[in-house]
Amino acid sequence: MSKFYGIGVGPGDSSLLTLKAVDTIKKLDILYAPEGMKGKDSIALGIVKEFLQPHTKIKTRYFPMSFASKEKEVEWEAVAKEIEEDVKKGEEVGFVTLGDPMIYSTYVYVLKRLREKIEIQTIPGISSFSCIAASQNFPLVMDKEPLVIAPCTMPEEELKNLLYRHTNLVLMKVYKNFPQIVKQIKEANLLEYAILVCDGSKGTEQVFTNLEEEGIEDKISYFSTILINKNK
Amino acid sequence: MSKFYGIGVGPGDSSLLTLKAVDTIKKLDILYAPEGMKGKDSIALGIVKEFLQPHTKIKTRYFPMSFASKEKEVEWEAVAKEIEEDVKKGEEVGFVTLGDPMIYSTYVYVLKRLREKIEIQTIPGISSFSCIAASQNFPLVMDKEPLVIAPCTMPEEELKNLLYRHTNLVLMKVYKNFPQIVKQIKEANLLEYAILVCDGSKGTEQVFTNLEEEGIEDKISYFSTILINKNK
Repeated sequence: MSKFYGIGVGPGDSSLLTLKAVDTIKKLDILYAPEGMKGKDSIALGIVKEFLQPHTKIKTRYFPMSFASKEKEVEWEAVAKEIEEDVKKGEEVGFVTLGDPMIYSTYVYVLKRLREKIEIQTIPGISSFSCIAASQNFPLVMDKEPLVIAPCTMPEEELKNLLYRHTNLVLMKVYKNFPQIVKQIKEANLLEYAILVCDGSKGTEQVFTNLEEEGIEDKISYFSTILINKNK
Repeated sequence: MSKFYGIGVGPGDSSLLTLKAVDTIKKLDILYAPEGMKGKDSIALGIVKEFLQPHTKIKTRYFPMSFASKEKEVEWEAVAKEIEEDVKKGEEVGFVTLGDPMIYSTYVYVLKRLREKIEIQTIPGISSFSCIAASQNFPLVMDKEPLVIAPCTMPEEELKNLLYRHTNLVLMKVYKNFPQIVKQIKEANLLEYAILVCDGSKGTEQVFTNLEEEGIEDKISYFSTILINKNK
């Protein structure tokens, strides 16, 4: 019976694909690749390009990234419908997604619409934070501590509470509110335990150990993550 | 110049190795494999066995897992010293570790002792929770929510707070205090959003969607993880 495969392709470097992801990509009849804002999701297709076989048909589909829009619901519904029809025709169908499919991935919106209808296999991928931590030899968490992974698009007060309560954090999407986030980290006395990594795994990686460095705001990129570990 | 490579080998299934991990393992002169309690860490060597080359020398070393013992400090120090000497002799030296090297891995104890002394490259791996979530098609976190990864060896009061404050959690090491942990999840009104997975990625995987199932305590294994997502 044919299946739908949700494939985590990792953060950017093709060598961080798993063997399972590569084997799966090679056997697909159809591969869906999400296309979003800022070129973000065309990256997923780029990562697997060298492993694509001539018989695999590529379907690039637009996935709006904005929150709470009616538009995105309509788009996801349409893509899910199309995938369902392809699988029911007997095709092996894949969907590539950056990082890990179960952690902040648009793949989940498709998965939720399809899991009662067709057989689905999800293949895990390397998360951007695992990649960044490895490249910096920066331990994220040990022993009995919890690790908190938080998108900084959350309400300011919630972020503040996380910073006061925890010593091991990954802060994602720090680009938009950067000065405010640095201020909050400082107030929680965690600044000396934090590093900022921009464009990890993209060949243009930049690392900042001083988050108050002059002019840092002009240097950081959309793909910026802060790692904090008080016991590193 | 020769290097020390910390290699994340994922949770158990060899096909979840990254291409980079496989390429690195193939070029090693020496591979260190940690051996711990309950056969846990010999698994790391088992995962990469099929990719080992005849020229690679295997050094299995004992890594005590108990907390706060003087014994483990002595053992880690000795292994770190031996690795340092091997690298300084010009050997390409690797160390395999389960899951991801930067998340609850004994590799960090070696890394901390060596990072000022030799060149080190860490290669990320698939975490056990990513693998379990994928195999269950269970989304871990979306949008603006934080994801909390917590070892249940932490103090009871801290776990209770986490369960009251968050909706997306991965609870690891739930084996020891299982009835108490289930009670806490129930008190936080999260029981219906939780699943328990034992031996994920080991071929003997068991999944429980009812954590109060009769006799569950006798069925669960040492490698048990609970996933919670209120919006799954």
